Amino acid sequence: MNNILILGAGRSASACIRYVLERASEHNWFVIVADADHELAAKRVGNHPNGRGVWLDASKVNDRRDLIGRSDVVISLLPPQLHLEVAGDCILLKKHLITASYVSKDIYKLSDDFRNKELIFMGEMGLDPGIDHMSAMQKIDEIKAKGGKITSFSSNAGGLVALDCLKKNPWRYKFTWNPRNVVKAGQGTAQYLENGKFKYIPYNRLFKEYRLIEIPGYDEPFEVYANRESLLYREAYGLDDIPTLFRGTIRYRGFCDAWNALIQIGLTDGTYPILDSEKISYHELMEAYLSKEGRSGASVKERIAELLGENEFSPVMKKLDWLGLFSKKKIGLENATPALILEDLLLKKWKLEAKDRDVIIMQHEFEYELEGQKRRLYSTLVLEGKDANDTAMANLVGLPLGIFAKQVMTGKITSTGVNIPVKKDIYKPVLEELKNYGVVFHEREEIL
Amino acid sequence: MNNILILGAGRSASACIRYVLERASEHNWFVIVADADHELAAKRVGNHPNGRGVWLDASKVNDRRDLIGRSDVVISLLPPQLHLEVAGDCILLKKHLITASYVSKDIYKLSDDFRNKELIFMGEMGLDPGIDHMSAMQKIDEIKAKGGKITSFSSNAGGLVALDCLKKNPWRYKFTWNPRNVVKAGQGTAQYLENGKFKYIPYNRLFKEYRLIEIPGYDEPFEVYANRESLLYREAYGLDDIPTLFRGTIRYRGFCDAWNALIQIGLTDGTYPILDSEKISYHELMEAYLSKEGRSGASVKERIAELLGENEFSPVMKKLDWLGLFSKKKIGLENATPALILEDLLLKKWKLEAKDRDVIIMQHEFEYELEGQKRRLYSTLVLEGKDANDTAMANLVGLPLGIFAKQVMTGKITSTGVNIPVKKDIYKPVLEELKNYGVVFHEREEIL
Repeated sequence: MNNILILGAGRSASACIRYVLERASEHNWFVIVADADHELAAKRVGNHPNGRGVWLDASKVNDRRDLIGRSDVVISLLPPQLHLEVAGDCILLKKHLITASYVSKDIYKLSDDFRNKELIFMGEMGLDPGIDHMSAMQKIDEIKAKGGKITSFSSNAGGLVALDCLKKNPWRYKFTWNPRNVVKAGQGTAQYLENGKFKYIPYNRLFKEYRLIEIPGYDEPFEVYANRESLLYREAYGLDDIPTLFRGTIRYRGFCDAWNALIQIGLTDGTYPILDSEKISYHELMEAYLSKEGRSGASVKERIAELLGENEFSPVMKKLDWLGLFSKKKIGLENATPALILEDLLLKKWKLEAKDRDVIIMQHEFEYELEGQKRRLYSTLVLEGKDANDTAMANLVGLPLGIFAKQVMTGKITSTGVNIPVKKDIYKPVLEELKNYGVVFHEREEIL
Repeated sequence: MNNILILGAGRSASACIRYVLERASEHNWFVIVADADHELAAKRVGNHPNGRGVWLDASKVNDRRDLIGRSDVVISLLPPQLHLEVAGDCILLKKHLITASYVSKDIYKLSDDFRNKELIFMGEMGLDPGIDHMSAMQKIDEIKAKGGKITSFSSNAGGLVALDCLKKNPWRYKFTWNPRNVVKAGQGTAQYLENGKFKYIPYNRLFKEYRLIEIPGYDEPFEVYANRESLLYREAYGLDDIPTLFRGTIRYRGFCDAWNALIQIGLTDGTYPILDSEKISYHELMEAYLSKEGRSGASVKERIAELLGENEFSPVMKKLDWLGLFSKKKIGLENATPALILEDLLLKKWKLEAKDRDVIIMQHEFEYELEGQKRRLYSTLVLEGKDANDTAMANLVGLPLGIFAKQVMTGKITSTGVNIPVKKDIYKPVLEELKNYGVVFHEREEIL
């Protein structure tokens, strides 16, 4: 096997492309990077003799199949909704396929087709999902191997920015990944398990009812809000009878109360357009959410504070004010939903500056019984990026893809069918190699 | 024209059927009542010589068309989603069609087809929608005719139960119409106009931010929460430039805070199933919504009270308790959403007893300028039903259909195409005849 096709040349692709190109001469690989933006694809490859950047409109079946047909392993960083079609191509043309996206039910249905052709489809091979699965499963398998019985598993992760880069930003948050997903985060109902009982947190309480966790090296606790799909991990991780299972998202202290304020006002809703949105100001938008009459002479800001049960100079109100939600500036977006208006505003205010360093924090917390003793184990990763162009986020999404592609290219993978990285033969070599890139989990154990 | 077909023999059909049968001999009408429940259809007709109850599965095109083909005017009380098909039949077979349901966009598209065949489709000819349109348009036309300029219009309505029938019910509410619509009420975002500005109230604040109104004859004010679609009425009512336009739903004092509690807990959500719902008790369901740890030893009820910012014996908590939400009784419904569990519980607790009398309350409030003077006009309907079998609700939904059918049958209607009752030649005779049934709006005007 000599030919690797990488579909997509965006942010998450860069680390993956760099990784495979660095090893291309040694292994005699040829790497094609395909993107709708030809210049970007060419730039990612540079003048590497073993690579080429090409133009591809991934929605065009024939062009896509032409490229896939000439490769041995396909790494897809295309938008998730395209993966089903690409998977179909790979079955047809007998190619292995690797992605960092969540594996959909429709893709799981293709498992037999991949297996029958002795192919592997590896999904969720990025950071979250990806490194979360691998690092958790390594600990789960270790604990089980020594005879431990796991009674509780909480897994929390967040993509943040180093505190010293956030001094002018009262939210202490910037976008390091998909802004739309941040705006929509938590919509629906979070579900998890606690002491053998199912728990539900509806969206309107999700950011009010956060937990606090401690991360080594930080003086203050972090906030964690519950993810929607914790229960899916019972089966995937072989924890079917576990009494407590929780997954959450990590933010710096102070974030959740302020985000909750945006939810309560109504600004995260993407289901209806604000009428005349192109003509009105942010101040008028806020006023449009005030239905109760305020005290005589009360400003819009004072009335919003009252609605939220805050005082006008509280930390939450300062964050709203800093975003410019009370400014008389025009929104200038036609037929926009509140969520779109918010996203547009946050894109300006939460933009990563050139020298900003992002931080990935991931922490697994296990409780288990071993030889009659109750123990609690924390396994924590804290990894900083270099700057806005070389983020820990992009590296940790892209590197597992590259490392796993190398395993496949060098014939070290015998699994077939649709997989996620929860098996030892898959996660072990990837985690081992990731250590060279600083992906090291520090452990702390307590006897309870 | 001699033949009337009434599709559907349910609650709202009874008053309509009674009305047309009472006039059948005089006008030499023959009335066919068709329902999937043949016995019910036959019962509604009784032994009236001019009527017959027949069996019909309305989803069967040929059977439906056979009946429609033999009629002159069709009154449909079928579920709203069937009206598009019935409308198609009526165009094909050249029949007039009358319904009490909201007119969908798809039906409006058929307006030319009805008009070209000199047929009328009359929609929204019930109570709400129906009597609300007619009574409001009568006042709007009167004010305009005398040269008044309307600056504000609020229209509120509610289907309630007489206070003396509610002594044992702390919610002071029972179902007199579709329970599912009550559970889902307000989901989405309410929109209205105030002083020339659009206003939005998201669902999570809708039942917190109610208004109070006074109704003549009652000592205490009523609560009003905003309806979703107030803005639609600008064009329909010819009020395109009106600065303030609001529509709301009326409840007795105390209802909205308690309903808001159900929303905040998460019980009105119909989008996901409660896991193991058939096995757990209401008490366990409430516990499943508690994510924060309570004070040591705090009961589920105490923790829910804390979550809601209530004390354990507050009026809101008493209402939740009265529903049985803290009882150890099993829910006993498989794979049920929270909304379905709530609906099932409310069906038992909010059931109309045989002797209960319902009350329809409708109030229009206009502000207008006439000869340099600002005036405020209240136009209010309060109408009680007789008992659970003869409700004001069913009468006021069914009578306008019957009365309007008579107008069509006796050749008094010249309008064609798709209509709602906002024109004088349509609403005037209907409102006039409704007075005989107690539908009298009392007016009070203030000079401001």
